[in-house]
Amino acid sequence: MDQVRLIEVKQDIHADNEKAAEELRRQLSEQKTFLLNLMSSPGAGKTSTILSTIGQLEGTLRFGVLEADIDSMVDAEKVAAEGISAVQLRTGGFCHLDAAMVARGLEGLELGGLDVVIIENVGNLVCPAEFDTGAIKNVMILSVPEGDDKPLKYPLMFTVCDVLLVNKIDYLEFSDFDLEAMRERVLRLNPDIRIFEISAKTGQGVEEWAAWLSEEATGFIRG
Amino acid sequence: MDQVRLIEVKQDIHADNEKAAEELRRQLSEQKTFLLNLMSSPGAGKTSTILSTIGQLEGTLRFGVLEADIDSMVDAEKVAAEGISAVQLRTGGFCHLDAAMVARGLEGLELGGLDVVIIENVGNLVCPAEFDTGAIKNVMILSVPEGDDKPLKYPLMFTVCDVLLVNKIDYLEFSDFDLEAMRERVLRLNPDIRIFEISAKTGQGVEEWAAWLSEEATGFIRG
Repeated sequence: MDQVRLIEVKQDIHADNEKAAEELRRQLSEQKTFLLNLMSSPGAGKTSTILSTIGQLEGTLRFGVLEADIDSMVDAEKVAAEGISAVQLRTGGFCHLDAAMVARGLEGLELGGLDVVIIENVGNLVCPAEFDTGAIKNVMILSVPEGDDKPLKYPLMFTVCDVLLVNKIDYLEFSDFDLEAMRERVLRLNPDIRIFEISAKTGQGVEEWAAWLSEEATGFIRG
Repeated sequence: MDQVRLIEVKQDIHADNEKAAEELRRQLSEQKTFLLNLMSSPGAGKTSTILSTIGQLEGTLRFGVLEADIDSMVDAEKVAAEGISAVQLRTGGFCHLDAAMVARGLEGLELGGLDVVIIENVGNLVCPAEFDTGAIKNVMILSVPEGDDKPLKYPLMFTVCDVLLVNKIDYLEFSDFDLEAMRERVLRLNPDIRIFEISAKTGQGVEEWAAWLSEEATGFIRG
């Protein structure tokens, strides 16, 4: 098991987040590191999606993970147990990550050896949508048990993301979740969003989503 | 279907929230209105729990509901369709309710005719835990598909609540959710919390939880 580093992050309310995010993207472009920001509600399956995605792309791209949590290190420990470089950012009550926090977290990973870093943001459909982390692409998970009405209630999150992963599709048969209604609601907010249906648990659909990620990351790294 | 009122709420960053919450509790005590603050992740089942709880206590207590959402009125419309007085608070991007927002929302309900008002807070396990709404009791829902590790990751929410409703227990058989491990984690944070296992969908366990609510509300109203 890799060692997990713990970094306590505090919000600098004076920081100009947009500027910090642009500066971070410039650095990532120079360093050829593809940074992906993964957001969702608590319990939608961020950690298991990260693990199944990295498992799918093992041997083709080198991954690191930035785990954000208000407290505890359980997610970073799970990731590190799979031999993946992981840093735990403990946000101490803050409900989102900003670019300065992410930049501090990246200092804890050896970026020279990594092609892709995935940020597991704080489990929250509200605040993380409002803060540019400096990531190259933004991805969100909506899990089937949460319901198909979430795009109506948390529209900003669905609007700022490049990809929507509909996770836990193995629950579809026990649920009244309407995939078509959900899809229509999401595309009305964000016509360009890519939607993949997956089950991080069974592996269903992960290949297609991982192929998208691999193509985007490879294109970015080759510049 | 009852008419739904929509109130746009903006956060007054200068307000002293603790003071406003105390003042609201004083007023509620005078008016004999029991105010319950219900919190959870998005999609944990707040609206369906409210409906099944009120259904259980129909004819014994008169209920009103304050629905908080960043956008949309779907929840308030669902509640009003059942003939229950509902006000929609649209928070316009804010990730929680504070006591001033709740006080404004209560102005939209005719409190004289109501024994219990339930606040459906913004779906978020982080920020709502930090703001006293002026409620008499705080209740949270954790739904089975979210996982049993949530007390480790969102400890403040589990610490500030008087009751934990473990919802969607009809999903237990398809899940590796460990009820005993979850219970132990929660009680370590908050030894006095009451835990009820329910399924708002099937009705299982709702009677016991509703009986607790009825007893608390009746005690409060009788003063």
